[in-house]
Amino acid sequence: MLSFIRAAVGIPNASVFLLCGGTQTNATVIDALLKGYEGVIAAETGHIAVHESGAIEFGGHKVLTLPSHNGKIDPDELREYLERYYADDAHEHMVWPGMVYLSLPTEYGTLYSEKELQRIREISLEYKLKLFVDGARLGYALASDSCDITLPRLAQLCDAFYIGGTKVGALCGEAVVFPKEAPEHFFSTVKQHGALLAKGRLPGIQFETLFTDGLYFSISCNAILRAMELKKLFEDRGIPFYIDSPTNQQFPILSKAQMEALEGKVLYEIWERLPDGRCVTRFATSWATTPEDIEELAGLLDRCLP
Amino acid sequence: MLSFIRAAVGIPNASVFLLCGGTQTNATVIDALLKGYEGVIAAETGHIAVHESGAIEFGGHKVLTLPSHNGKIDPDELREYLERYYADDAHEHMVWPGMVYLSLPTEYGTLYSEKELQRIREISLEYKLKLFVDGARLGYALASDSCDITLPRLAQLCDAFYIGGTKVGALCGEAVVFPKEAPEHFFSTVKQHGALLAKGRLPGIQFETLFTDGLYFSISCNAILRAMELKKLFEDRGIPFYIDSPTNQQFPILSKAQMEALEGKVLYEIWERLPDGRCVTRFATSWATTPEDIEELAGLLDRCLP
Amino acid sequence: MLSFIRAAVGIPNASVFLLCGGTQTNATVIDALLKGYEGVIAAETGHIAVHESGAIEFGGHKVLTLPSHNGKIDPDELREYLERYYADDAHEHMVWPGMVYLSLPTEYGTLYSEKELQRIREISLEYKLKLFVDGARLGYALASDSCDITLPRLAQLCDAFYIGGTKVGALCGEAVVFPKEAPEHFFSTVKQHGALLAKGRLPGIQFETLFTDGLYFSISCNAILRAMELKKLFEDRGIPFYIDSPTNQQFPILSKAQMEALEGKVLYEIWERLPDGRCVTRFATSWATTPEDIEELAGLLDRCLP
Amino acid sequence: MLSFIRAAVGIPNASVFLLCGGTQTNATVIDALLKGYEGVIAAETGHIAVHESGAIEFGGHKVLTLPSHNGKIDPDELREYLERYYADDAHEHMVWPGMVYLSLPTEYGTLYSEKELQRIREISLEYKLKLFVDGARLGYALASDSCDITLPRLAQLCDAFYIGGTKVGALCGEAVVFPKEAPEHFFSTVKQHGALLAKGRLPGIQFETLFTDGLYFSISCNAILRAMELKKLFEDRGIPFYIDSPTNQQFPILSKAQMEALEGKVLYEIWERLPDGRCVTRFATSWATTPEDIEELAGLLDRCLP
Repeated sequence: MLSFIRAAVGIPNASVFLLCGGTQTNATVIDALLKGYEGVIAAETGHIAVHESGAIEFGGHKVLTLPSHNGKIDPDELREYLERYYADDAHEHMVWPGMVYLSLPTEYGTLYSEKELQRIREISLEYKLKLFVDGARLGYALASDSCDITLPRLAQLCDAFYIGGTKVGALCGEAVVFPKEAPEHFFSTVKQHGALLAKGRLPGIQFETLFTDGLYFSISCNAILRAMELKKLFEDRGIPFYIDSPTNQQFPILSKAQMEALEGKVLYEIWERLPDGRCVTRFATSWATTPEDIEELAGLLDRCLP
Repeated sequence: MLSFIRAAVGIPNASVFLLCGGTQTNATVIDALLKGYEGVIAAETGHIAVHESGAIEFGGHKVLTLPSHNGKIDPDELREYLERYYADDAHEHMVWPGMVYLSLPTEYGTLYSEKELQRIREISLEYKLKLFVDGARLGYALASDSCDITLPRLAQLCDAFYIGGTKVGALCGEAVVFPKEAPEHFFSTVKQHGALLAKGRLPGIQFETLFTDGLYFSISCNAILRAMELKKLFEDRGIPFYIDSPTNQQFPILSKAQMEALEGKVLYEIWERLPDGRCVTRFATSWATTPEDIEELAGLLDRCLP
Repeated sequence: MLSFIRAAVGIPNASVFLLCGGTQTNATVIDALLKGYEGVIAAETGHIAVHESGAIEFGGHKVLTLPSHNGKIDPDELREYLERYYADDAHEHMVWPGMVYLSLPTEYGTLYSEKELQRIREISLEYKLKLFVDGARLGYALASDSCDITLPRLAQLCDAFYIGGTKVGALCGEAVVFPKEAPEHFFSTVKQHGALLAKGRLPGIQFETLFTDGLYFSISCNAILRAMELKKLFEDRGIPFYIDSPTNQQFPILSKAQMEALEGKVLYEIWERLPDGRCVTRFATSWATTPEDIEELAGLLDRCLP
Repeated sequence: MLSFIRAAVGIPNASVFLLCGGTQTNATVIDALLKGYEGVIAAETGHIAVHESGAIEFGGHKVLTLPSHNGKIDPDELREYLERYYADDAHEHMVWPGMVYLSLPTEYGTLYSEKELQRIREISLEYKLKLFVDGARLGYALASDSCDITLPRLAQLCDAFYIGGTKVGALCGEAVVFPKEAPEHFFSTVKQHGALLAKGRLPGIQFETLFTDGLYFSISCNAILRAMELKKLFEDRGIPFYIDSPTNQQFPILSKAQMEALEGKVLYEIWERLPDGRCVTRFATSWATTPEDIEELAGLLDRCLP
């Protein structure tokens, strides 16, 4: 069962579980892997640190934040943090770091290189930290030209990660992979977290479909192709970007006038309000975005933008 | 949005939320309605007391158990428990009862009568307890000939209940109804519990379908009709029942020889092993059971049973 | 440090921690020893099951109750429970038993014999359960004529226990002993539970005093001597007992008339109200009870009782 | 009972509870005042954010950190944070701010002025946040020349605060004050947190003593007088300070040579290691520090420092 996932990650005896939704998966896996007195290290912009309504703390664990560099943590700063922690005479009064949480791509669409992941892995091993990769949008990382890591390589580098289904076209479903071994009685922890699906065939059949004939990769690629076209549209019109994102999330900076002109005509999110009145916006393509959608946006920008 | 649910329960301004799975729904609703120092009263056979891997305790709340009478709590015993609690000088050292949890039908397929529900409601109001009804299989209660309560009447009698979708044919989904008012910021509590679906349209469209043209009721009826046929099959063959269940779950008691004879030919669960070697078994019909299925079972019993 | 405790329990390399109060100690030790998905088995009358305001559940763990036999669990029923648990096909949906909690003496003043403890230990080892003994009143067990177990023998038989100071004259303080090894980073778990005393010398000096020249044992003996005298007072006057308790808690059954006669003249607790109007009462002696106190009670009973 | 505390804070019907230890008190009060989905705002250097082994998260609540300005939060930054939070379209996916936590004095010995407290109070009321002041070292704030707030004024400005006993000479004990009303059934929450002392007279008699004849204030004053003398010792010798602290904690910056010279001769803590090799150290005076202690330190500095 689920052998197609094990095949895709290149580890025949990996443990695979199907959960439903990013926050649920993060909370369940992190709780299962940490000891009661341990916390999880994340970028201060990490999904678990900001946008999960405190689901990790609900499970009793602190999120220990490091500075975010376009969504990523810096391996040197990670090491420094750990050195400082263990050098502190009072560290037993502080939350023990028990895990590093990364998202790939990050919440800002950026990617860790294989070299960066390898360094973080080395540091994790040295300090006995679990390494967990949030792959809610993993397909959009793997499909990016800038990505130098593969699914099997990722599986070798971490203790747990998940292949998000919801963001690449599934109705719901995330495939959690424990490349080495699952936490003891993980099934019961899943149930305890209210994360056990009565009809596992719902995510099961979707993942089987995604991992048949490379569908997961091809539809992920579509999102990236469309994202690069979308990016060019803004670049061609001289609109600056907040971040040079190589994945499906793009962050053009729009002026107030530009946003008013686009009002009600295209759906995007306001990511951050800048002091000068402009806004960092987020445009996300997906498996379902068509070349026609992009053309339509081009026309819209031509017609509306001042 | 979801006005078809509000219409079905007869309360135009009820709050409705779609979650996914019984344990998740129980844990989220109970945690949202209880104060930190309160526990929830349930039958000792209640789903939250036995089969949720401690999801309620994971949220910090104790399940306070009362004796089970074929799956039901007895209103008199409830009142007695509350009187004893408040009469106890040390009751502030004990968990405060904050809610009554009922399942309808119960885990043994049995039903509370309207009169019983009304009495439990009165006691709940008197002792300032919330009343929450687990309706994972609610359709199979409402469709039973023995049920003297309607969806609108149920909504009047409790603070929260849910209409289970998963057990009546939905891929997933439970519709939580707060007839009066939802707990403050319930959305965030749902997210905190990892219970927020990114694509709410998945349960949404299923519930819309179920509540169009009475589908929810007609397919629930099918399960009951088939259950009564199934019941007769066993009765006709002189096989006793553990409980006289009026809903889709039936509990014939089989001897070892009978179970061996049926081995591998029909799927049922062993509910309880009796001291004399016989077993209480559980046969459950559903929205999908056909008259042909029942006929097939009849043939099987004829051929196999000694 | 605290070597006097290690000497008293006969295990030179035992780990010892000083906490403050029974509920705090139970909650901290149980949480430290259990995995997230595990619960703790206790008698339904056990302190953690009834009188700790849900402190164990606050830490996320379920208390799994067994019938109480005068406050004790029955080894056979324990084994039966475990056999039934593992035989149940759905046991992964239930809370995993991870520990047995006993109190010595129990909440009803009764004692486990060495043989009973040994059997419970064997079952615990067989089913990979930790064995934890709540010794809030341990001195009053050890000092009883009916007790056939010593402190060193107790230490050999369990994974953790504590020597209560508060109930034998200390202002506060319980000495937790891990005979084999302490849970990893237990110090941090203690801090996390708010159980770390800034001035550890407060319980430290009290325990040092208690374990100098056998004070702990001699003042415990005083309580037992006085309790036996007290017991005789009631027996001589034909007053029945709820339980034949060999320790410092005695449970005479008083009629309404008797209670009215004693009203305001002696302090005791009402333990349970019997259907016939009589009450089980609790009279507790302590390290501080004098022979004169008992004589005074004798006079009081003579004067007042009908 | 405890009317001497109510008198000292100038609120005759304030609710007062005696707990034991700062972390325990913080965790219990914060949990009692917050709703399940709420977090507590604190300076990133706040005790609850750093040095409590995650006790707040153990109770399920996130600590939401603001920049620390010598241990204090800035009222403008607080308001900005709240405005940004409520302006964020996704704020229901984030932890709701439910409380402001301040320490007085802060972990860096600094003080909020009455005006600052008033502003924070106004912002708290505007955004429906509880205001809780950690007064583990409150005596050392009130006794400082730089402090323009009194105990009664503090009581008017917040929803809860505590008067630390442990740090001003008590063996243990913190007096929690709810000037308006205590959280419902706070007693049970205290018990649930393992924070209920069996012998409440232990902190009770100590606080009664502290609040008789102004002892609490006079011994706090002693610590401040000694701290100012100690400060002068370092100033006179040209040793710089990390912070200009007006309370009992002083933070001289010592070079490696200076620390080596003092090695083993005086007890202090290393607070922070500076990039240039020097260390921020912490010297704390207390109720028990004598003028002779300071003179001894003066001699030591003369003899040892290069």
